[in-house]
Amino acid sequence: MDIYFDNSSTTKPYRKVIEEVATAMEEYFGNPSSLHKIGMKAERKLTEARDFLGKSINASKEEIYFTSGGSEANNLIIKGLVKPGHHVITTVFEHHSVLMTYKELEKIGVKVTYLDVNRDGKISLDELKEVICKDTVLVSIMHVNNEIGTIQHIEEIGSIIKEKSSRAKFHVDAVQSYGKLNINVKKMNIDMLSISGHKIHGPKGIGFCYIKKGIVLNSLINGGSQEGGFRGGTQNVPAIIGLHKAAEITFINQEENFNYVKNLKQYMIEKLQEIDDLRINSPLREDFTPYILNVSFIGVRAEVLLHLLEDKDIFVATGSACTSKTSASSGSYVIRALGLEKKEIESAIRFSFSRFNTKEEVDEVVEVLKGSLNFLRRVKK
Amino acid sequence: MDIYFDNSSTTKPYRKVIEEVATAMEEYFGNPSSLHKIGMKAERKLTEARDFLGKSINASKEEIYFTSGGSEANNLIIKGLVKPGHHVITTVFEHHSVLMTYKELEKIGVKVTYLDVNRDGKISLDELKEVICKDTVLVSIMHVNNEIGTIQHIEEIGSIIKEKSSRAKFHVDAVQSYGKLNINVKKMNIDMLSISGHKIHGPKGIGFCYIKKGIVLNSLINGGSQEGGFRGGTQNVPAIIGLHKAAEITFINQEENFNYVKNLKQYMIEKLQEIDDLRINSPLREDFTPYILNVSFIGVRAEVLLHLLEDKDIFVATGSACTSKTSASSGSYVIRALGLEKKEIESAIRFSFSRFNTKEEVDEVVEVLKGSLNFLRRVKK
Repeated sequence: MDIYFDNSSTTKPYRKVIEEVATAMEEYFGNPSSLHKIGMKAERKLTEARDFLGKSINASKEEIYFTSGGSEANNLIIKGLVKPGHHVITTVFEHHSVLMTYKELEKIGVKVTYLDVNRDGKISLDELKEVICKDTVLVSIMHVNNEIGTIQHIEEIGSIIKEKSSRAKFHVDAVQSYGKLNINVKKMNIDMLSISGHKIHGPKGIGFCYIKKGIVLNSLINGGSQEGGFRGGTQNVPAIIGLHKAAEITFINQEENFNYVKNLKQYMIEKLQEIDDLRINSPLREDFTPYILNVSFIGVRAEVLLHLLEDKDIFVATGSACTSKTSASSGSYVIRALGLEKKEIESAIRFSFSRFNTKEEVDEVVEVLKGSLNFLRRVKK
Repeated sequence: MDIYFDNSSTTKPYRKVIEEVATAMEEYFGNPSSLHKIGMKAERKLTEARDFLGKSINASKEEIYFTSGGSEANNLIIKGLVKPGHHVITTVFEHHSVLMTYKELEKIGVKVTYLDVNRDGKISLDELKEVICKDTVLVSIMHVNNEIGTIQHIEEIGSIIKEKSSRAKFHVDAVQSYGKLNINVKKMNIDMLSISGHKIHGPKGIGFCYIKKGIVLNSLINGGSQEGGFRGGTQNVPAIIGLHKAAEITFINQEENFNYVKNLKQYMIEKLQEIDDLRINSPLREDFTPYILNVSFIGVRAEVLLHLLEDKDIFVATGSACTSKTSASSGSYVIRALGLEKKEIESAIRFSFSRFNTKEEVDEVVEVLKGSLNFLRRVKK
């Protein structure tokens, strides 16, 4: 039996989501922009989804814009707002859909401040206060880091930004936190937020962004007047219906799932005591998501360990799937950003959980880890 | 029973496509960028799809890049290549995902030549020859117009571009022709091409572009190194598998479908003889696709007629769904571009067919049209 501990890369869709998507492909195949009933029937499903998704973060349905996923949402938000001459702030360990977008914008004269993170992956709020200036138009800080699971003080960061600047907007990549932690865009002073469907057992190819009423963005995809003119292209109605369903199931069970996964992480950390020479990079603490457990197995190359585990049908990651090839060969830029030692960086493995993982799976993974590590460490000597 | 004559807006997915998507959501849920077997299993399905789709236009699998649909594909191609100071050429009646993208680029100093079309929607090849200059980097011309169905001389246009310039690339929006007309990117000298899944009974939210080997584009969506670095974001594996299936079914039946639909269009044009005061904007000719029949019912506002038909469960369009709201109120920019009279512009209805439409449906549509037109024209007097 497969043991899938790679739920931060992607999740298996809920059975009900698959059924909804299949039904929608048949029943709601119309183009929501069409003027006739078949189009309007599809359009109504979009409105229902917008309403639910909006409420899930304390926003209104008019503030929800569908995209093809989290990466597009981040690109739309950043490229839609930032112009040459602007100043922006982000962190050194954002997802590549944020980091690479800023790298691109630097080429056209955007000034980017990359905030460092400490060994726990936390930014310094004092540093943030210092770097906000009159040219700052956007601050992009992820809610939960996708590799080590650090939870930033989003509410405090939101307050600081609003205190220091009436101009700077607050953008939160919430791909890893949505459906797992509470998000309240008003309370947290979030202006723009990005979400991905396939991280919450929803369909791939769909996500959304929240864009606070009053903010005007340039389109990333020009075309028709879909999505309030912010995003051209026929909406992916079946996937939106599937995302809606996935969010419904996720939110009903959010607290229960959270506690379940927290127990699982605690259990795995305890079991890992049986293994020498490791570093828990994402401890069981309030400021780390329980869904992610990153561990460095000193003296072992993460990629090699990954493939040994894979041979036993255990599936994990060495870093973000989006940057898997580079992180496998030279270690993850996220882990490096924590300032760990080389041997900790190159041996880091991410276990990421879902509600469907079990303690029995943890037992098996730890047993296989012991065997693999014995083998690898013996070979090395 | 619904009569759906709006297949150029979107099509109902094949049953087999729905089944494939549902199965893939379960079986191939992995992230293709993951280093383990579950990811690689998904990645292999992408390669299979790329291979098939590439062959369908005489390209190699390395030249196929998945996007969220036709609009994104057009945006990626255009914004990925064109820079301030460049000259580009297009037509006045392209899809909005091309036109609006160029309008946007004009703001940053791109010079755009909009070729006029004649009453049949054809560009002048002589004019094209004249306007290509040393600064021309891109020529975007759609294969089949989405509202009146004109087929451009793509092969001749391709030759002209290559003759006149070694620099200018040829971009073809093939959203309305793919799976209906033959496309051979080598023979036609096409450098870049865009395709949408949901126009060929495939899933929504998926499309692809062909980008000729050697051409380097800036990403529209920055992020991970997916799609050869041209497009960040986790690939929509189930939709890609569904698109692959839709293309397979479509290509097996391409010729048969074409002839079937051609008969249907011919039949409808004959039946329409029973109605006075109309103009066939897309005649049954070699240079018009049989899949589209655009007709002006003089003296009647298209939107009003559309809603009368809708009351009888007949679904048609006044223009592109993407611009449906404006075309309904002020007439379609495509029909206007043909230089028709005002009364012909504001009364234009697009009937667009699929293999699943029948002569019995045509009979019923024409009967309802007669009744509706009698009513509307009487009311007007």
